[in-house]
Formats: sequence, C-alpha cells, structure tokens
Amino acid sequence: MIRFYNGLCLSFAGGMEVTGDEVWVDGDKISYVGPARTDMPEFQRQIDLNGDLVMPGFKDAHTHSGMTFLRSYADDLPLQRWLYERVFPMEEKLNPDYIYWLTRLAILEYLTSGITASFDMYFHRDAYASANIDSGFRTVICGVGGTAQLIEDEYRHFNSLHPLISYVPGFHAEYTASQEQLDDMAAVARELKAPVFVHNSETESEVQGCIERHGMTPTCLFDKLGIYDYGGGGYHCVYMSEEDLKIFKERGLWAVTNPASNCKLASGIAPITHMMDLGLNLAIGTDGPASNNALDMFREMYLTTVLQKLRNMDAAACDANEVLKMAVTGGAGAMGLTDCDCIAPGKQADLIVIDMHRPNMQPVHNVTKNMVYAGSKDNVRMTVIAGRVLYEKGEFFVGEDVERIYAEAARIVGEIKGEG
Amino acid sequence: MIRFYNGLCLSFAGGMEVTGDEVWVDGDKISYVGPARTDMPEFQRQIDLNGDLVMPGFKDAHTHSGMTFLRSYADDLPLQRWLYERVFPMEEKLNPDYIYWLTRLAILEYLTSGITASFDMYFHRDAYASANIDSGFRTVICGVGGTAQLIEDEYRHFNSLHPLISYVPGFHAEYTASQEQLDDMAAVARELKAPVFVHNSETESEVQGCIERHGMTPTCLFDKLGIYDYGGGGYHCVYMSEEDLKIFKERGLWAVTNPASNCKLASGIAPITHMMDLGLNLAIGTDGPASNNALDMFREMYLTTVLQKLRNMDAAACDANEVLKMAVTGGAGAMGLTDCDCIAPGKQADLIVIDMHRPNMQPVHNVTKNMVYAGSKDNVRMTVIAGRVLYEKGEFFVGEDVERIYAEAARIVGEIKGEG
Repeated sequence: MIRFYNGLCLSFAGGMEVTGDEVWVDGDKISYVGPARTDMPEFQRQIDLNGDLVMPGFKDAHTHSGMTFLRSYADDLPLQRWLYERVFPMEEKLNPDYIYWLTRLAILEYLTSGITASFDMYFHRDAYASANIDSGFRTVICGVGGTAQLIEDEYRHFNSLHPLISYVPGFHAEYTASQEQLDDMAAVARELKAPVFVHNSETESEVQGCIERHGMTPTCLFDKLGIYDYGGGGYHCVYMSEEDLKIFKERGLWAVTNPASNCKLASGIAPITHMMDLGLNLAIGTDGPASNNALDMFREMYLTTVLQKLRNMDAAACDANEVLKMAVTGGAGAMGLTDCDCIAPGKQADLIVIDMHRPNMQPVHNVTKNMVYAGSKDNVRMTVIAGRVLYEKGEFFVGEDVERIYAEAARIVGEIKGEG
Repeated sequence: MIRFYNGLCLSFAGGMEVTGDEVWVDGDKISYVGPARTDMPEFQRQIDLNGDLVMPGFKDAHTHSGMTFLRSYADDLPLQRWLYERVFPMEEKLNPDYIYWLTRLAILEYLTSGITASFDMYFHRDAYASANIDSGFRTVICGVGGTAQLIEDEYRHFNSLHPLISYVPGFHAEYTASQEQLDDMAAVARELKAPVFVHNSETESEVQGCIERHGMTPTCLFDKLGIYDYGGGGYHCVYMSEEDLKIFKERGLWAVTNPASNCKLASGIAPITHMMDLGLNLAIGTDGPASNNALDMFREMYLTTVLQKLRNMDAAACDANEVLKMAVTGGAGAMGLTDCDCIAPGKQADLIVIDMHRPNMQPVHNVTKNMVYAGSKDNVRMTVIAGRVLYEKGEFFVGEDVERIYAEAARIVGEIKGEG
C-alpha cells in the first residue's frame, strides 16, 4: 500500500474543490480518500506531498504514439505535401518491431506530462499493445477499420488481453473509406453494440469532399449509416454544422479536440465554447508527434482555452476549470475508462503529483486555473498508473533503460531513411 | 574557467548550424568556441554535455516581472473588468519591498525556461534592480515615462549601476500619456539620442482611440513627435497599418510580439509573417504573469509560429528557425544586449544547456525545429548568466533560499488582499 499525505487533493469526484485529503492506494486501486486517520494499515511507501497536489492523471483522448519517428522530420510544409511526400511514404516502412520501440518512446513522453492513458489509433496493434504492457502504461486502442470479421476479432482479442489494454472500434476517416468499409463499420457497431471513433471534420476540404461524395457531412453520413448508433465520437471536429452538433448532442457522442495539431497544420479552431453551450461531451488529445510535435497535455489545455478566447474575441470565454475537466474526466468518459476518472475508493490508482514548489505555481491563488494557464511538464513530480510509480522526479521506471529506447528509435529512423 | 564539451553547440554566430564545438568560459565572458584542443587551461569545472546542446539564453523582450502576485488571480474575465477591477486596484498597493520579492520569484521562473535576460517595465525600479543584482540576473529596465528630468536621471543612474543592469527610456502607452508627457518623451529621445519603447497597437480599440484623439495611429503619432527618432520599438504590435509597418522598417524599430498574452486577453494575432516579409526587426516577450500566466519562452515560440499558420491558413507559414532567432538574437538586438546575442569569444557567457536526453527531443531529426515545436522547460538542464550557473537540474543558485522567496510572495499577497 502507498499513502499520499500532507498535501492537496483534487479528486474530481465531486466538483473542482481542492482539499487536504490523503489518498491511500492498495494494489492497483484507491482504497481511501479523506482526512488523516489513526487506524492506518501498514504502508510499503508513505509519500510526503509537502503541499504538492495529487489528482487523477490526464487522459490523452486522441494520439498516434508510433509517429514519434516523424517528430520534427517535416515541419513548415503545406498539409498535402507533408502528408503525401513525408508521412505516407515513411509509414509504409513501419513494422511491428519499429512500432514497439517508437511507442515505448511516446510512453516516456506521456509520463513526463502526467498523462496516464492514451486513446491511440495506429498500425501493428499487437506490437503496440506489448509496448504498453511492458511499460506498465494504460491505453485504449482505437481500430482502423478493416472487414467486420477482423474488427470483431480485434475487439474480442484486445478487450481480454490485459487489464491495461482495451479496444474500441474505429476507422481512419470518411475520405479514406470505401462504401463497403463504411457499411462494415455500421454492421460492427450493431453487432457489438459498441461505440465507434473516427477522424471527423478535421479540415474544411474534408467536409466539402464528403458533401460532394455523399451529399452530406461526415457526421450526418455516419449517423445515417448507423455507425454512431451505440455512441463513439469524432477526433478534431473543427468544421461542424449545427446539424452535426445536434447529432452529437442527441447521441451523447464525444468531440475530441486537438488544438496544437489543428494550429500547426493550419486546419482551424474548433467551436469549443459553442459545443460547451450545447452541453456536448468533450475531451482533449495531443494527436501524433508528427503534427504537434509534443505529447504534452499542458500545451493542449492552454491552447484549448486561449484559442477560444481568440475565436470569440472574449477574454472570458472557455473557463479553465472546464478545460481541466475535459483533460481528466472528459477523456476518461470518451475512452470508456470510467474506473480511472476520479480519486475515489475502488477506482484505479491512475494518479499524478503536481509539484507546487516550482516558481510557476507561486503564489497559490487558484490551483486549478494555474494548472491550465501556467502548468507545465516542469510541475509533474510523479506519474502513477494502476498503483505503480512509472515516473518520479525526472526518472522513469518502465522496465527498460531509457537510453536503450532512444537508441532503438535512432536505429529505426536510420533504417527507415535508408541510412542504416 | 568553465568548459562545456562532448555535446552540440548552436552558437547563433553565423547561421543556424549545429556543431560539435566546445565552449570555454572565463569569468563573465566566452573565451573560446571551437573543436577540442590539447592546449587547455586549468578549468574550475568541466561540464560533460553528453550530447546535450549549449546555446545562448533566450531574451524575454517584454515583461512585467513584479506581476507574479497576480498570477491566476483574475482569469477568464473580460479585459476591461480584469484591468480596472482586478489589476489596477491591486497594483496601487505595491511598494519597493513587494516588488523586490515578487521580482525574485519571477527570476526563478525565467531561469527554468532558459531565459537569461528580461526587458522589464514596471514600478519601483530601484528595488527591481536590486532583486536582479542579488539574484545574478540580467535585465534591461524600460522606463515608464515621467518628466524629462526624471527619465534622464534614471537613464544615467541605471546605466552606470551594475554590469547586469541597463536602462532604455520608455512609457506605458499613448492612451495613458498626456500631450505634455508625449512631448517630454520626444525631448528625452533627442537629448539622450536614445531608443524609446512603448506598448503600441496592442488592441484595436487602442488604435481607434488614438485616431480619435490625435487623428493618426500610435506609430504615426510617435514618429511625428520624434519619439522614434533614435530607434526603439513597440510591445505587442497586433494592429499595425501598412504605414505603421513602413515607419518600423525605415527607422529599424523593433516589434516585440507577445502571443500568449494576446491570446489570453483576446487581443488578436500580430501579422508576424507579413512583418518578416517586410524585413522588420522582431523579438518575443512573455508579457507579465497576470496575462499569460507563465514566463515561458517555449510557450511563446510555439505560439508565435502556429498562430501564424492559423492566421495565414498555411502550415508552411513562419519557419520555426526564424522564430528561434527572434527569441535569441532578436531579443538581444531589441534590448541593446549586443554582447549577449551569440556564443563567440569576448561575448558575455549567457548560456543555456538543453537536455537532449528527454523523450520530447528524441529521435533527433532537426534540433532547431524541435526546440520550437517540442521543447519545454523540461529540457532546460542549465541556465548560466555572465558565467555564473544560476540554475541546474531543477536547483536554483540565486543567493537566496527558494522557499523563502515563495513565503515572501505569499506574505505579500496576503497583505495586499488585506488578509495579512
């Protein structure tokens, strides 16, 4: 058992109140949250928070972890050239060995930013799952389409593989799917009664193309085909019609925003405040490191709110506390990780400790707003997943030497570039 | 003498080439940059970079350090309410003791972000200077107007006070200056043959108000009055007419951009790429921690480039290498710190070491682009000013206990809020 004491606690179990509660962890679960007690069990480790903040970890609700190999490989290029000249030709060379190491690298970065679970869509999913299991990291795999049979096999396989791994059906996007593939996705949703996630309305040209091909927006098309019959949602959701938003609201779909990627690829600013006004389900993702280029939830939270202030030309737009909820409980909801969404007895011990003794957290006026407006990786003292400390004070405890992971990533880049 | 060896060097002395050069520091100056040599002097300390990057520190070309006391005190409010209900009433209570400690707090934060000099405009400048001198931090004080005599006295006083301190005349803004004060500023510029810096065209309403009051934009007004006769520039520069930009170009004025503040206060996005096309002198500032809320050059650099991609709807807009130059040589130029702008023999040893062994820097495709697109405080291994190591691996060496500085800031906030 582990005890976190003598600090602040932001549990997300009720409102956004910061308390002085202690947190006890037993195995992979939280066993107690509340005031200090005299009837304490024997702890393996007692962590003196010394005024630091314990809270649930961030959930990265859309990413492509394996894309670490493309980080800063192709910046400052127009979107189409970036995708067709740099990304797609490189991706063709990926294999399971590559994905394993590139994912282990991404996991290190998630940990530095207090991210305790990812919602990942990429290739070679068995190798991907192994990288997560070996690191002790939690992930929800989003499928990338295929035949109905393949998706159903993946669904059963990954959802029974390991406590840290789960799987949600999905596919890349309307513009890369044939009518047959779209029909297969709808059949899968019906068959499994499962939510479906997909890149949706990321760019204006994507939406225009869909209207030309199908006579309606991607959201209306997926709705009509039955793909969204059992929930799910869209990644990006930058260009959404009022009808699209109505469908999202009525079906309880999740809009996952990726502001850094949408900026860097010049896609646009999602209408987050309008979505909030409508009461939509919202979460935040980093997208992959090729288009961001960091896997940093602090960057995403800051961008989520300030871009809305710009979009609405209103400094009061998009309250930071709502953004913090998106990054924690929102992400957990989108990813189906309802046992990782707050600090309460019986919940998974996916926790982070925020160092309040760094200058950007001082003086302490408002902990939650400061997290969003001033917080950074520099404040992540500790990242804990399923009760295991994977990151503490800059050091990683992921079952592999960090320099080995860097060396493997360098080898892979060399081989892919044809230098190796 | 200190030796940095076995790593990468981005000197900014020529282009943006990353070399394997070593750097030697003697006292407050750089004494050698080049390949390893056998004829080495005796070093007090040899720093094995182990592949890490040494480069000149960032220059924060516009800030109000003492505003740390307002960090996260008034977020998510409309600009006018924020300023008139929260900022101005609190600022009236400031005194030299408060400014001293609040500045020492800000300096800690600059160091964590690799910032080695600030261009600061705020109150109680003697206490402010003491805080910098006592910390070992370099700063350029920008005046806030006053009578011609006062400004000239300040100019002579601060420019001969200490090697780490210099002073440039300035005033808050057109909309807070009387005609007499504007005339005084012009007289000071002529008398001292000195550059003048001022908040300029931060918001659309500021520009409109100036046109109503004076029949022209702030830039045209300052130009006509002779305030810009010996150079200087503007902070923010969000709403600039073509005529304004022409004046900036012809006079070699500096446009200092503050993208985080301009987002958070919903001011707008400065036309940086257009300014680049015109060949304007450009630098980057954080603005104060009340409107940002962090003092983090990595955030500013990322925002500077991605906001231009959004503004132009072009992912190729605003090359990251140009942004990195703005944050280093640009800032040094704006601040008159021409002896701190690059790593070359005889220059001041204002250096930072960037940790390349963090996951966000791996794999190493492109060091300079990665600094802008993925870099963070997590990568700042060391910050050195005038040859003194002030920050290393999370620890501060600023002549004062960090917890004491936090405690003083808390005391001050309590007193200002009337709780103390």
